[in-house]
Amino acid sequence: MSNLTPPRGMRDLLPKEVALRDQATSTILETYRKYGFVRVETPALENIENLTGGEGGENEKLVFKVLKRGEKLSNPAPGSSERDLVDLGLRFDLTVPLARYYAGNFSALPNPLKAIQIGPVWRAERPQKGRYRQFTQCDIDIIGMEAPLAEAELILATSDALLALGFSNFHVRINDRRILQSLAESAGFEPAAFNSVFIALDKIDKIGMEGVRNELIANGQNADAVGKLLDLLSKMSTEQTFEQKRVLLPDHGDSAVYDALQTVTDTVQAQAEGRFGMMFDPLLVRGMSYYTGQIFEISSPEFPSSLAGGGRYDKMIGKFLGRDVPACGFSIGFERVISILETKNLVPPADRKKLALLFEKTDPFLDVAATARKLRDEGHIVSLQVKRPKLRKQLDDLALQGFSFFSIFGGTGAAPAVKALEPSPDTK
Amino acid sequence: MSNLTPPRGMRDLLPKEVALRDQATSTILETYRKYGFVRVETPALENIENLTGGEGGENEKLVFKVLKRGEKLSNPAPGSSERDLVDLGLRFDLTVPLARYYAGNFSALPNPLKAIQIGPVWRAERPQKGRYRQFTQCDIDIIGMEAPLAEAELILATSDALLALGFSNFHVRINDRRILQSLAESAGFEPAAFNSVFIALDKIDKIGMEGVRNELIANGQNADAVGKLLDLLSKMSTEQTFEQKRVLLPDHGDSAVYDALQTVTDTVQAQAEGRFGMMFDPLLVRGMSYYTGQIFEISSPEFPSSLAGGGRYDKMIGKFLGRDVPACGFSIGFERVISILETKNLVPPADRKKLALLFEKTDPFLDVAATARKLRDEGHIVSLQVKRPKLRKQLDDLALQGFSFFSIFGGTGAAPAVKALEPSPDTK
Repeated sequence: MSNLTPPRGMRDLLPKEVALRDQATSTILETYRKYGFVRVETPALENIENLTGGEGGENEKLVFKVLKRGEKLSNPAPGSSERDLVDLGLRFDLTVPLARYYAGNFSALPNPLKAIQIGPVWRAERPQKGRYRQFTQCDIDIIGMEAPLAEAELILATSDALLALGFSNFHVRINDRRILQSLAESAGFEPAAFNSVFIALDKIDKIGMEGVRNELIANGQNADAVGKLLDLLSKMSTEQTFEQKRVLLPDHGDSAVYDALQTVTDTVQAQAEGRFGMMFDPLLVRGMSYYTGQIFEISSPEFPSSLAGGGRYDKMIGKFLGRDVPACGFSIGFERVISILETKNLVPPADRKKLALLFEKTDPFLDVAATARKLRDEGHIVSLQVKRPKLRKQLDDLALQGFSFFSIFGGTGAAPAVKALEPSPDTK
Repeated sequence: MSNLTPPRGMRDLLPKEVALRDQATSTILETYRKYGFVRVETPALENIENLTGGEGGENEKLVFKVLKRGEKLSNPAPGSSERDLVDLGLRFDLTVPLARYYAGNFSALPNPLKAIQIGPVWRAERPQKGRYRQFTQCDIDIIGMEAPLAEAELILATSDALLALGFSNFHVRINDRRILQSLAESAGFEPAAFNSVFIALDKIDKIGMEGVRNELIANGQNADAVGKLLDLLSKMSTEQTFEQKRVLLPDHGDSAVYDALQTVTDTVQAQAEGRFGMMFDPLLVRGMSYYTGQIFEISSPEFPSSLAGGGRYDKMIGKFLGRDVPACGFSIGFERVISILETKNLVPPADRKKLALLFEKTDPFLDVAATARKLRDEGHIVSLQVKRPKLRKQLDDLALQGFSFFSIFGGTGAAPAVKALEPSPDTK
């Protein structure tokens, strides 16, 4: 019993860190509730087969697996596999459990279900700066509602939440997986190559057009198709209007895809009122393979990676339920948002009502407690503290801990005198 | 991928269940914050050696253990033990992790630390009605503060929280582990027998005095000591005053123990103002072996088991830190409290502001969204819904889902007419 640190890659949160997270969570929840979203909860653990069915992509390799218990776990025989040893796993995201939850509970749920999930997920990734093995995800999902209404609601609610958190100067980019597919198809790639094409495209911001070309050629892709794709890309720019981008793209044969994109883009642009940007980005990819329709991402030139991401996944619930149900979600990068709020010093200011009531050990405690109650009833947050010999030092410590007032117990029946607490200049 | 249920003994929470839990959590947090408590958080997982060091008693047998990952997990050899396979476990309570947290972070923490922890814990218990393998604990702890100040604060804050949740007619019972020890000692039991004596005493409400006698005799305890103990018990009654009980008990030689009990009892009684009871109960035991001083429990004749329990554990942090730090905690039985609130139909009333905005698929969506925003700015919680052919049925469904108002999109620029939503009499 002497290991004082949390498990590798996991963290203890100090009071001021939890305070900031709680404040952000309550701001986000308040915004989402205005849109009619309601919180739902699934257990942290899922049956292992639900976490290894392929929906989670690469994340399925990162599952923390739980050992079977008691009689279920016979002594491992030589050559026994992991599958013999484990029956549960910690969830790696909130989307796969939500699909399972919806399929298992749909008759008891509102239709459509507009779900908020804020909770921890676990991934056994190699720990690195700013990445943790337990972290919070913050998702909204609309299940049972078709495009593009759900998409517009999700983007409006998520943008509103970011505005409420104090973010500005961000932009929403939107695309549709079917446009990406027709892009790859029209350039001449085989369907089996689409994923490699998307993975390369996803890196265009980092490695540039030539980087994309090199990666695809190195992967053994058809040089002719690569050339056609790059040719098309070179004609595109972020300055083009929706219509200008659209005419450059191969016709998917389904103008409804473009009409829906335009509806969402126009609706969000109208409500943004210039506070944030909204644009069609035919090169937006998003990592997860389960997306089936529109995909979207929020980022800001101020920060290196995205603030939120999501999209439509109409085929996932069917894998649990046996029939498809339209579904679409948007996830705020909660940990990233918190780390930005910390840098911005958006930590909540010391509570103006926080008061320390100091008393001597020899004071009648019953009366000390009664004084504390009186101060609490007046709206103060009151902590009782035994007065130390070095009062000035104690007051400085209290000020540094975020106390704004103090009061010294003045005797039974005496009205407590409340004084403002200012740290000495040299302790700041 | 077709397992729709959560893991055995775990639950999915429906929106109205989460709403009640959120409401109770925020009531409790608001109360605790008035007392100067602050939230802290530890990871769900702990290094396995911290969960098997003996502090958790019987709970240590119930740990969900996590399989080592990657290269750390070599193929299990014949006869390899569990210890070779696992390195982490899910926490079974919030007290052991808090002791580890305090020891690991004390220089960055306020002194004293007044910590709130509300979060899930996991125990692989045999599932039964009302008992789950993942459940929420709700603890406050004061670390770095000596008796009896911390005890009084914890009991006042916890009682206040229960009052704020709507509980009344409950009573707090208090005792001190050292009184139990002197009781057993003076009856003539050997120290090695104390635990058996406490376990039997703990059952007196269920099995009565003769039951306690039979259990102790069956355990092979000294018949003379059993006789003396029962003799003393027969003289006690809940109607006696603190002083009457005190004179019956063997003098522990340390009157400070009784003085501290009396201080806490008097202080809490004074603030209770008759809203709840507070009494010294020399037979109160509490299960955990880590308690070193005062122990306390809140129960109500209305409910079979206790609402809250806690006590002082001055020796636990020392096992991590190498030096003892005074510590005391009180835990609300969150799941029990929630199940009582559910029976009492204390579920939050349908939000009066919840409104469904109905529109046709052919309506201009940009204007529908603008109308929704207008209604949200007016303070409504607004959900957009496509109007169904059977309007009456749709309105009934919405009323059952907790909507109180609806509005039908009336065209671009038209002011939305908000109507109250009443379910048809036959759908109630």
